[in-house]
Amino acid sequence: MAKIDRRSAPAGSGSRYPSPFDEPCRGRSWLRLGDAAGLTQFGVNLVTLEPGTWSSQRHWHSHEDEFVYVLAGELVLVTDRGEETLQAGDCAGFKAGVKDGHCLQNRTREMAKILVVGSRSEEDHGEYSDIDMLFTAEKYTGRSEYRRKDGTPY
Amino acid sequence: MAKIDRRSAPAGSGSRYPSPFDEPCRGRSWLRLGDAAGLTQFGVNLVTLEPGTWSSQRHWHSHEDEFVYVLAGELVLVTDRGEETLQAGDCAGFKAGVKDGHCLQNRTREMAKILVVGSRSEEDHGEYSDIDMLFTAEKYTGRSEYRRKDGTPY
Repeated sequence: MAKIDRRSAPAGSGSRYPSPFDEPCRGRSWLRLGDAAGLTQFGVNLVTLEPGTWSSQRHWHSHEDEFVYVLAGELVLVTDRGEETLQAGDCAGFKAGVKDGHCLQNRTREMAKILVVGSRSEEDHGEYSDIDMLFTAEKYTGRSEYRRKDGTPY
Repeated sequence: MAKIDRRSAPAGSGSRYPSPFDEPCRGRSWLRLGDAAGLTQFGVNLVTLEPGTWSSQRHWHSHEDEFVYVLAGELVLVTDRGEETLQAGDCAGFKAGVKDGHCLQNRTREMAKILVVGSRSEEDHGEYSDIDMLFTAEKYTGRSEYRRKDGTPY
């Protein structure tokens, strides 16, 4: 049937960031809902963030628009413009190429759930705003790497 | 700030379908959340469906993936594969080029809310499964038209 069976959605948790940058993201888990429906033009991930967990290190994308919608809980959205609280029903968008990194931090004692939408471009690369790290292109063929901002690998 | 101010989101309601095909969609309204954030690679619309209202006539897209997530209420998803009930937290995806039309019908006495994500391609066109209508390409430059399936205009 057309309804997405969540049990069929590719699932994962944690982070592939090199240590210690993975630490704030260890309590993160996701279901790839768009992939479960065979979609390829954009991803839609249902992301659960345990208390104390961040959605990611603060980052921006060169070629991919990104959109987040808070389904449950409360999160602090951090950007160059400061901190804002997002609650269920709040949302934010991050335009490709705008070098203002963002992340969502769950500073509460409750779980939070967000829907994250991102377009898919093999050209996409980006940087992390608060740490000495970037990611290279070719994510979807598995060739993307984390590197220091001088280009040296971790 | 980065949070989307819903008051700034382009809003609309009803349907541009030729009469009488607009009738089931008159109780439809939307906020273009992705547009409010300046996103261009995909649209994210928060759509409210009053009791008795359909999300659209049943249709498919040639070039655009589409994804819907039910935020509130209960909807019947109609496709060639039959009818399914979707409740808050349920979702479905419709891959570009798959000629199995879909729509969501609110048959309850309560409002329903969905988040609709769609990629954006000027090449996109499609057909309506249950009525003698198609839509031509170039939606985003305003040149798309509704026509009968033999190509004659309405």
